[in-house]
Amino acid sequence: MARREMRHFGWGDPAHVSHGLPQAALELLRARVGLSDVPRPPVPIGAVALPGPVEFDVPGVELRTDHEARLLRAAGKSYPDLVRMRWGQVEHAPDAVAVPRSAEEVRAVLGAGVAVVPFGGGTSVVGGVEALRGAHPAVVSLDLGLLDRLVELDERSQIAVFEPGIQLPAAEGELNTRGFTLGHFPQSYEYATVGGCVATRSAGQASTGYGRIDAMVVGLRAACPAGDVDLLTAPGSAAGPDLRELLVGSEGALGVLTRIALRVRRLPDERRYEGFMFGSFEQGCEALRALEQEGAAPHVARLSDEAETEVSFAMAGREGLVAELAGRYLRARGVERGCLAILGWEGTLDGVEARRAASLSVLRRHGAVSLGRSPGRAWSRGRFDGPYLRDDLMERGVMADTLETATTWSNLAALHRSVGDALRAHAPVVMCHVSHLYETGASLYFTFIARQREGEEIEQWREAKTAACEAIVAAGGTITHHHAVGRDHAPYLRHETSDTGLAALRAVKAQLDPDGIMNPGKLLEA
Amino acid sequence: MARREMRHFGWGDPAHVSHGLPQAALELLRARVGLSDVPRPPVPIGAVALPGPVEFDVPGVELRTDHEARLLRAAGKSYPDLVRMRWGQVEHAPDAVAVPRSAEEVRAVLGAGVAVVPFGGGTSVVGGVEALRGAHPAVVSLDLGLLDRLVELDERSQIAVFEPGIQLPAAEGELNTRGFTLGHFPQSYEYATVGGCVATRSAGQASTGYGRIDAMVVGLRAACPAGDVDLLTAPGSAAGPDLRELLVGSEGALGVLTRIALRVRRLPDERRYEGFMFGSFEQGCEALRALEQEGAAPHVARLSDEAETEVSFAMAGREGLVAELAGRYLRARGVERGCLAILGWEGTLDGVEARRAASLSVLRRHGAVSLGRSPGRAWSRGRFDGPYLRDDLMERGVMADTLETATTWSNLAALHRSVGDALRAHAPVVMCHVSHLYETGASLYFTFIARQREGEEIEQWREAKTAACEAIVAAGGTITHHHAVGRDHAPYLRHETSDTGLAALRAVKAQLDPDGIMNPGKLLEA
Repeated sequence: MARREMRHFGWGDPAHVSHGLPQAALELLRARVGLSDVPRPPVPIGAVALPGPVEFDVPGVELRTDHEARLLRAAGKSYPDLVRMRWGQVEHAPDAVAVPRSAEEVRAVLGAGVAVVPFGGGTSVVGGVEALRGAHPAVVSLDLGLLDRLVELDERSQIAVFEPGIQLPAAEGELNTRGFTLGHFPQSYEYATVGGCVATRSAGQASTGYGRIDAMVVGLRAACPAGDVDLLTAPGSAAGPDLRELLVGSEGALGVLTRIALRVRRLPDERRYEGFMFGSFEQGCEALRALEQEGAAPHVARLSDEAETEVSFAMAGREGLVAELAGRYLRARGVERGCLAILGWEGTLDGVEARRAASLSVLRRHGAVSLGRSPGRAWSRGRFDGPYLRDDLMERGVMADTLETATTWSNLAALHRSVGDALRAHAPVVMCHVSHLYETGASLYFTFIARQREGEEIEQWREAKTAACEAIVAAGGTITHHHAVGRDHAPYLRHETSDTGLAALRAVKAQLDPDGIMNPGKLLEA
Repeated sequence: MARREMRHFGWGDPAHVSHGLPQAALELLRARVGLSDVPRPPVPIGAVALPGPVEFDVPGVELRTDHEARLLRAAGKSYPDLVRMRWGQVEHAPDAVAVPRSAEEVRAVLGAGVAVVPFGGGTSVVGGVEALRGAHPAVVSLDLGLLDRLVELDERSQIAVFEPGIQLPAAEGELNTRGFTLGHFPQSYEYATVGGCVATRSAGQASTGYGRIDAMVVGLRAACPAGDVDLLTAPGSAAGPDLRELLVGSEGALGVLTRIALRVRRLPDERRYEGFMFGSFEQGCEALRALEQEGAAPHVARLSDEAETEVSFAMAGREGLVAELAGRYLRARGVERGCLAILGWEGTLDGVEARRAASLSVLRRHGAVSLGRSPGRAWSRGRFDGPYLRDDLMERGVMADTLETATTWSNLAALHRSVGDALRAHAPVVMCHVSHLYETGASLYFTFIARQREGEEIEQWREAKTAACEAIVAAGGTITHHHAVGRDHAPYLRHETSDTGLAALRAVKAQLDPDGIMNPGKLLEA
């Protein structure tokens, strides 16, 4: 239980003081969603009941079985996780928490004959760390928090080797002092670990420029119940199927990543984020497609649809002036609502200048209107705030959740429409942004907000989530672009892997984890 | 047996007339290697004895069992393959050749109860299409030549869907008429198929710019004995382990790729290839590393070591003037031998201009001396000629073969030295070039040339090959960067996957191909 712990019922530091929602946002929510005037406070940590622990030993490894340790390792940070934690309905908890100090101790835990749930930052929003026992007598949370070293930095090859449990700010900090960056900034950045990101195929806010974490992995070692998988670090290879890509995204269901070699880049001298307006989401998407396909994309590329743009401006508070300005611009061009894009370039001063100039020439052709740096700065300041806001909303009786998918450029508008329609049947506020660009397509990130049905919070959430997942599958999107599969998406995996493909993955699982102790009930077990 | 066929004993069109080696090259070979003055002609196709065929039927699929069909599908184009074909020592041949007209017919062949060797262009240089029976009563060559369509081109998403058997020139031709390119130009370009490239993780001469074929695959369908694996086309996903990366590089050992969705790019308006000289291989490697890590790399980046540079200039014939010029430059700089690099930029006119300017600024900093466009044009003219030259050498009693590996930038010099040393114990001429750049490292492509030991050609080759493979493993390189595993590299695969990793791949094989009919004796069976 090393490093920074989150509060049990929500995101972030237990000492975090909410500044509340801006007045304009409160008005918008009150008008469109409804807010409870009396806050519904969380149950204190000591008052959350947990199922009684089953006792077991792991020779040579210290186990914690106290209430707090078990509670803090019982779940991740999905909306249903927080509902359960906040109001004390926790069903599953680890019988013990192991905090190994070495790969040998990890292997000892795998040999204990109990279910093992690897735990990194605990930021999963898909039930990926829920302490399920499966068919086993007990379940241990394998907390990787003490395996938190930067093992080696090969500056010449731009390869950093990490232990799995290092949190992203620590990893980034160690690299920064040597003049490098991982460039990986998911919204869970403050707590997520390198191992967790790799195990879940994470993508960050600057992944259009730095690439998804998958693209950074050049070597891996994993401790599996059947033995260690140790893969050569190589920049490229034709030596058969790529085993790295089998362990990346394996979500603790095959083994525990114990060494991760990642490509890093030079720390940028300059980061320049700017706002732009487009007349419509469609027009904005066309501009992003052109940027990416013409090799002129920025590092950060994020385009809100009309609904999200409206809410963003309402939330902006201090940035109201910019919203006003944007509104005037758009009215002058005969457009009613419009869409906000945040674009960001990183690199050397000259590199940013050159790349931005290339982007601007494409943007002008596609009718983008610059809003200058102020919206970029505002976005940058608040880029990790989403999870705190969710807590504020839950306190006021509001359900807020996000989900994401990706598809080809040709299919993007249809997917946006059909997932949006599915969610709008369950939530009065549904908004979306494009968050990552690829030459062949892009991701869509949806937020949906509704008044909670008190006492039925999880059923309510499940109805909306199921509708959205079914719409994603029907419209040909991937069930997850960067949140991973976990428990929530497991029933949908076969739609994109086919049953024969899923059987192949299960064969790998049976080989590497013959007793099925690794993270039961997730990924391959729907 | 559709499309272009190669001559049985060597590379290329049966009607190909060799112009012979340039005078300077002959002199160099005579002095350093030895040449037979009396050419040793190949055995005519009718005189090559094949083992008698075992008869079997595939309901609904026509089988060819004539001598020519069986002979032309008996092997690929590795040096030992050609020795056997050229001098009539063929040990293994398919009992029949099936040429399915649909994915249904492919599935019928997989159900015939015989071993199946998928056959694309037949260009394997690692024994990948050798017609081995394994434990099965007979073996069929599954010729994919009639599955040769561009199924769909989604111009907006830049995704082309191909059947597996389309040859690269046909694929490129169809794309070019629509304004697109695959940008994939391996030395086997004239014959290789899209399916073969994907199944072997091919990389092309412009892969520094366009990416390896692995990076282009966005969707796949494969017919496996256990059923079809059908993977969603998505630009990016976090939905578990990446099954695409399990089928890419599966070398026909898991199933037959029947549909392949690839990212394509706009056809470039301009292709500009130029020559540069560096004072040493080390200096050149540093320049390439800087180009790639600073984001200023060209599409084609190829750097010969001192030995290859010398031979290149000797072979150049018409380009002797440039060699002379290069020599003068270098002497003026106090360098004796020097290294030749070919760099090439592709794209729009403006794009090439901008990118080349960025490259030149890095190159100047690293002491590169421009030789202008003439060496670039010469390289481009002869870029697919290597395999023809090998035939000319074999006719004159000379063994010539190539092998390749990749490693991190930090390890590149050590790998270059140790593989070179291993080969020099077996061949008087050993030369090498860097052929593909990555941010974290690069590939090395070795050529070795020796006088043949008549009657012991294959033993002689195996000694050199084994020495090189062992040196690669010992020095931490990958056993293959783009030639794939096949039969020749199979014994070395476990060094980079670990035994536990290899067991996982074998579990996938047992699941998808429970009777082990797919391409026996290759990839996972050492």
